[in-house]
Amino acid sequence: MVEKVKANCNYSGRVVEGPTNPIVTPLLTDLYQFTMAYAYWKANKHQERAVFDLYFRKNPFGGEYTVFAGLEECIRLIANFKFTEDDISFIRESLPGSCEDGFFDYLRGLDCSEVEVYAIAEGSVVFPKVPLLRIEGPIAVAQLLETPLVNLINFASLVATNAARHRFVAGKSKSLLEFGLRRAQGPDGGISASKYCYLGGFDATSNVAAGRLFGIPLRGTHSHAFVSSYMSPDEIIDKSLQSADGSSSCEDFVSSVQTWINKIQCSNSLRGIFGETNQSELAAFTSYALAFPRSFLALVDTYDVMRSGIPNFCAVALALNDLGYKAAGIRLDSGDLAYLSCEARKFFGAIEKEFGVPGFGKMGITASNDLNEETLDALNKQGHEVDSYGIGTYLVTCYAQAALGCVFKLVEINNQPRIKLSEDVSKVSIPCKKRSYRLYGREGYPLVDIMTGENEPSPKVGERILCRHPFNESKRAYVVPQQVEELLKCYWPGSSDKPREDLPPLKDIRDSCIKQLERMRPDHMRKLNPTPYKVSVSAKLYDFIHFLWLNEAPVGELQ
Amino acid sequence: MVEKVKANCNYSGRVVEGPTNPIVTPLLTDLYQFTMAYAYWKANKHQERAVFDLYFRKNPFGGEYTVFAGLEECIRLIANFKFTEDDISFIRESLPGSCEDGFFDYLRGLDCSEVEVYAIAEGSVVFPKVPLLRIEGPIAVAQLLETPLVNLINFASLVATNAARHRFVAGKSKSLLEFGLRRAQGPDGGISASKYCYLGGFDATSNVAAGRLFGIPLRGTHSHAFVSSYMSPDEIIDKSLQSADGSSSCEDFVSSVQTWINKIQCSNSLRGIFGETNQSELAAFTSYALAFPRSFLALVDTYDVMRSGIPNFCAVALALNDLGYKAAGIRLDSGDLAYLSCEARKFFGAIEKEFGVPGFGKMGITASNDLNEETLDALNKQGHEVDSYGIGTYLVTCYAQAALGCVFKLVEINNQPRIKLSEDVSKVSIPCKKRSYRLYGREGYPLVDIMTGENEPSPKVGERILCRHPFNESKRAYVVPQQVEELLKCYWPGSSDKPREDLPPLKDIRDSCIKQLERMRPDHMRKLNPTPYKVSVSAKLYDFIHFLWLNEAPVGELQ
Repeated sequence: MVEKVKANCNYSGRVVEGPTNPIVTPLLTDLYQFTMAYAYWKANKHQERAVFDLYFRKNPFGGEYTVFAGLEECIRLIANFKFTEDDISFIRESLPGSCEDGFFDYLRGLDCSEVEVYAIAEGSVVFPKVPLLRIEGPIAVAQLLETPLVNLINFASLVATNAARHRFVAGKSKSLLEFGLRRAQGPDGGISASKYCYLGGFDATSNVAAGRLFGIPLRGTHSHAFVSSYMSPDEIIDKSLQSADGSSSCEDFVSSVQTWINKIQCSNSLRGIFGETNQSELAAFTSYALAFPRSFLALVDTYDVMRSGIPNFCAVALALNDLGYKAAGIRLDSGDLAYLSCEARKFFGAIEKEFGVPGFGKMGITASNDLNEETLDALNKQGHEVDSYGIGTYLVTCYAQAALGCVFKLVEINNQPRIKLSEDVSKVSIPCKKRSYRLYGREGYPLVDIMTGENEPSPKVGERILCRHPFNESKRAYVVPQQVEELLKCYWPGSSDKPREDLPPLKDIRDSCIKQLERMRPDHMRKLNPTPYKVSVSAKLYDFIHFLWLNEAPVGELQ
Repeated sequence: MVEKVKANCNYSGRVVEGPTNPIVTPLLTDLYQFTMAYAYWKANKHQERAVFDLYFRKNPFGGEYTVFAGLEECIRLIANFKFTEDDISFIRESLPGSCEDGFFDYLRGLDCSEVEVYAIAEGSVVFPKVPLLRIEGPIAVAQLLETPLVNLINFASLVATNAARHRFVAGKSKSLLEFGLRRAQGPDGGISASKYCYLGGFDATSNVAAGRLFGIPLRGTHSHAFVSSYMSPDEIIDKSLQSADGSSSCEDFVSSVQTWINKIQCSNSLRGIFGETNQSELAAFTSYALAFPRSFLALVDTYDVMRSGIPNFCAVALALNDLGYKAAGIRLDSGDLAYLSCEARKFFGAIEKEFGVPGFGKMGITASNDLNEETLDALNKQGHEVDSYGIGTYLVTCYAQAALGCVFKLVEINNQPRIKLSEDVSKVSIPCKKRSYRLYGREGYPLVDIMTGENEPSPKVGERILCRHPFNESKRAYVVPQQVEELLKCYWPGSSDKPREDLPPLKDIRDSCIKQLERMRPDHMRKLNPTPYKVSVSAKLYDFIHFLWLNEAPVGELQ
């Protein structure tokens, strides 16, 4: 089975715990990282100091922004990076028998004390080509980190972005619940989705394990199976319910519900909407209310929403109301959610009026059933009365685009800048160990991200600076920043004594993410034809990129 | 952090280990499973015997078949299903404060000894609506299992199916390598993908952790960063290489490579194809060959495949050949893979002829770079010389369809059949505790799956039986089966003494999966417009479904 690395490293005076998922170990990498490490070791090149950038090339979901997530898990891996003897035996078995013993001794002593990690703060709004992480260290160990770091960031950032996009369409006032565990890509696809959807702006999850691991609020009520597991109210044996204030007790809550269903059926304003309601359903609702009188929320679409679910719900809610309890609301899980939510709202309003129950018209309405950005958008266009959305499959599997293409590219070795060429310009890497900055304009919006060489002076507030597109010579602009924010900060200084950033709690990351999203210029964020945010390089870096490119690229010969 | 349930249950005389991923615990479920469990317990209904079917409604990827996977992990969860005190404290915190203590005592004693699990063999070819698992047990515990079981089967079956589809397009003779870890949906999205792609017919993975956990063959060589980390062959210090048989030694392998690159440049048949090759690349290849002389495989597209990568590779391979080593081949990771593989093959053939190196023309060619079913199909149509494919993103994230919609539906409680209705006929569940059979025809192909009531006589070889579409009354057919296979077998008998199926090793599941896929009638398997495989119910079950349906559905009133 998976062994968990127990040793926790001391980091900034605090212990950095191991990765949340114990299967995240230094073996969670590609075999070629070990074959390369061996080749480097064999050539005595393994200690050469390399700089790698981790970045993505294109924003997901047809949008123009991405939420960066996964950093804490990366640092947890790095802080606890150590091979066990069992790991080393397995690596030895997996490599050719000719590999020398010294290499395995080297692995035995390996950790990340010579590695430095610079990163953008988790939960930041980020853009293509700008490094999310810069990893500096001996080339062999930096390479070993490639696969797990990319893995830990790719899905985290993708699903956090998806959550942020759902929030954008749903609007601030709605409650967003992540209900995706059962459809997620495996157990920790589910747990990661719960974590990073919360980070990206969701309010709660149904996933109990995630709630426990990360302190995310939990939500949930009952399923269709619960409803159909009942046959009739006669099944209910213990029918008594104390009033909310404990002052009195209703001996036969089942009869009280029955009285209410009759009243609703005979009411003038509601007459004719329904006949006999489903008795299995009424029994299930009554039983559920007896168990949770203070938080009664019912799934109303097992049989027929308007002819059975809603009247049954109202009867139970009114019986609860007699005892001083306030029902929480209904969930709709099928059908035309816009229409049904409006009809339900009307019905609740009629109940409020007819029976004089203040606030009944504002009863909570939750909608679920294969929701995604498009369906939320369609609901908004049609008009609806939904207060919260339970979103699963499309959210957690990132159905609209199931992968983000983060890459990890060598940009410098032994202080020599390196470039990765490609016939596809979008795949050419930006060489050199770099700094990056976000420049803000007069209205407080971020205007442009700019990358510079490590030793260039930083952009200054109020000073004009030329920002160039890294590959398109005609695209450039002068900017006079009103605020300059350096993006990469040191999250793992190795054994150096550089100042280091704290890893904030998830709740704080979520708050800062929401704040940053709100600070963006609206045209970058809109769903339809958003404006690309500008990513640039300094004039000096531009010139150097193109010098290196020409230097490395072979000159073609047309034949 | 995550606690691992240490207790392993005894099962069929063997210990069943816990789930591969320690985050799979009884808390990996939706909150509403606990609220329902509480409501059942409060109504003293929690021990009522329920039967749930786990099935999916539609084959993924526009195909007409699915590979069933994930069963072993389900049984591991069930065999070790037990709440810790910490779990129980957390559940208590997560439920309303009014929940009674007795419920938590109940949870404390809970395990799956009263549960029985019947399932189709893992690795089987399966079809919509036919139960993959049938779970029988006290309703509260069966409900708690819903979320983790659906989670463990959904992605496993989806990605195994995706792998099988890739194998179908690639053909039997090609080597298929799963390279997706970095782009997978989180760490165990990657590990699960590696496991289930192997199950579905892949040959190897790059994922070291998966190789170790499941014994999957590992594959991998080097990356572009390895190539660009070198500057020139002068960097190489230790230049000596022993011959393959140990009889002699080459003191300056770097020079030997240089000699070969010159010979290739001056050769008549190859003249004019290239000029100066890239020296970083030549250095990297030479260094890699010194580390792995018996398995030299080079990534040849860092600079220019035909003008640099291939000649450099050949020079190193020929220098190795002088010492009795046989190079393994090349990997292409960009560009027009069909064209480049053919050009590379020609070049290898020319080398074989020019320098008299037998077998050089058959040098292995691996292709990678965003491959999927469509690109494999396109390569086949264009003609290519690729021997193995390295497939990542599209395979492991199931990019074409990121989720399979497995559901878990109550079909019986207290021996009373239950049906889940829906306005959408495809969502109506098939009630009753059922048996299912696969009927084979004269040519050995499976003809139809049929579900019957638990107590109906089983279909018999040579006896005509009527197979009805469950919901379409006009679709029915008589079948005279030549072979009858009962699909559901007991994998978890709880504390009963029923005979139980073994959980076979992954390799055996893979073999039986490949065999089953080959046994299917080809028109069900083809990519374009495949014929749906027939799924049916017995005449008796058909009548009962429709009786129950009419009984439960409310009669509409048009107004």
